[in-house]
Amino acid sequence: FADVTKIANDDYVGFTFFVGCMAMMAASAFFFLSMNNFDRKWRTSILVSGLITFIAAVHYWYMRDYWSGVGESPTFFRYVDWVLTVPLMCVEFYLILKVAGAKKSLMWKLIAASVIMLVTGYFGEAVYRDNAAFWGLLSGLAYFYIVYEIWLGSAKKLAVQAGGATLEAHKMLCWFVLVGWAIYPLGYMAGTPGWYDGLAGLGLNMDVIYNIGDAVNKIGFGLVVYGAAVAAQSAEN
Amino acid sequence: FADVTKIANDDYVGFTFFVGCMAMMAASAFFFLSMNNFDRKWRTSILVSGLITFIAAVHYWYMRDYWSGVGESPTFFRYVDWVLTVPLMCVEFYLILKVAGAKKSLMWKLIAASVIMLVTGYFGEAVYRDNAAFWGLLSGLAYFYIVYEIWLGSAKKLAVQAGGATLEAHKMLCWFVLVGWAIYPLGYMAGTPGWYDGLAGLGLNMDVIYNIGDAVNKIGFGLVVYGAAVAAQSAEN
Ligand SMILES: CC1=C(/C=C/C(C)=C/C=C/C(C)=C/C=O)C(C)(C)CCC1
Ligand SMILES: CC1=C(/C=C/C(C)=C/C=C/C(C)=C/C=O)C(C)(C)CCC1
Repeated sequence: FADVTKIANDDYVGFTFFVGCMAMMAASAFFFLSMNNFDRKWRTSILVSGLITFIAAVHYWYMRDYWSGVGESPTFFRYVDWVLTVPLMCVEFYLILKVAGAKKSLMWKLIAASVIMLVTGYFGEAVYRDNAAFWGLLSGLAYFYIVYEIWLGSAKKLAVQAGGATLEAHKMLCWFVLVGWAIYPLGYMAGTPGWYDGLAGLGLNMDVIYNIGDAVNKIGFGLVVYGAAVAAQSAEN
Repeated sequence: FADVTKIANDDYVGFTFFVGCMAMMAASAFFFLSMNNFDRKWRTSILVSGLITFIAAVHYWYMRDYWSGVGESPTFFRYVDWVLTVPLMCVEFYLILKVAGAKKSLMWKLIAASVIMLVTGYFGEAVYRDNAAFWGLLSGLAYFYIVYEIWLGSAKKLAVQAGGATLEAHKMLCWFVLVGWAIYPLGYMAGTPGWYDGLAGLGLNMDVIYNIGDAVNKIGFGLVVYGAAVAAQSAEN
């Protein structure tokens, strides 16, 4: 019982870390255990959803403790998490569009852009904080490239050709990348100095914004993939 | 064994934390491992029962240690647990009534009301204790809204139309929300100052009451769902 310390009841940021950690664990259990209810072609997608939340669960465990123990933003663990989960989300996008004939090259393009987005973001947030706005801009360019590829690039054409469930899945994926992912730059602006000081974040804490973003994009997106699998399967039977 | 400290043999509150923790772990193993004995349409309900006890097991682990280490009520962890498990119970209600044609909007209404109930309860119990009675009243209103929706609202109509096993399941669900959930406000009254001082709690400790409530509502309710699945399945064969 040595490790127990008192927790402040009004530590709302800590609250979101704890809720996030447990939600990621529960989501992983859900995806892993329900995966075998589906036909083979859906199983890999559900499994990848589970991997994403599982990786996050471990990092939220660290981040939670780092926040309560050190009292600082756990930027290091945050980016270790993202550098694994964001490329995995690109794999997930590819898996969804594969039936429509998506090529592996699309996946690699998205992965490369997402790594650039995260490395430049890390420099701005953790290393060269004085130039956070500049690094954030570079990161944002890589982000817009991803948005462009998915909304207007080759992915779009493939989805339109395929129609039906694939087009539906593609649409929802587009909105996640445009709206769900846009939560993160807001958090970045709330937590770094720059021209946007006072403007962004609406008084919210950076970690709270990031934690909301992770809940939406990891659990929410996984559940949408799960829902698509349920719908496709019950349409077949 | 480095972390072991001596335990007081008459720490009855601690006893209920330890028993609760292990019971939640065992219940999770039971639900997760028996899930695949059922047809697909029942599996998700059993899985969600398992998720609820699994989330509770993790938080009882913390609460147990917090109680023995810090010697205070682990309010923070209690509400982290509830804010995840109570909405999951609303999902469970929806899954049970889905066959009767329940709409997703019912689920979202219940989830929203339950979050309001818990946030206001947390404020009263942990942050603004001097006004605990006022916050408890707000929380109670949200609770009554849930009771109303289930007993008399649209859920009721759907269940009556469906009849048979669904009506049975709905009835037992109604009683859990009315009687099982009512254990919690008793615990709240036992643990916070207000006009009800001396009146409520019957001399019982708040945490003991909450722990009993959790055993009834998480494990008990899960077992009832399990029993319904067994009954439905043997009726079909
Ligand atoms: C644009 C931009 C950013 C974008 C981050 C994103 C989009 C992260 C996505 C994470 C996901 C989707 C995790 C889910 O598993 C940064 C790095 C904050 C830096 C500021 C500019
Ligand atoms: C009405 C009321 C409350 C109700 C709490 C409830 C109803 C909690 C239910 C928890 C469950 C069902 C957990 C199971 O997983 C509070 C917050 C104590 C505050 C006082 C008023």
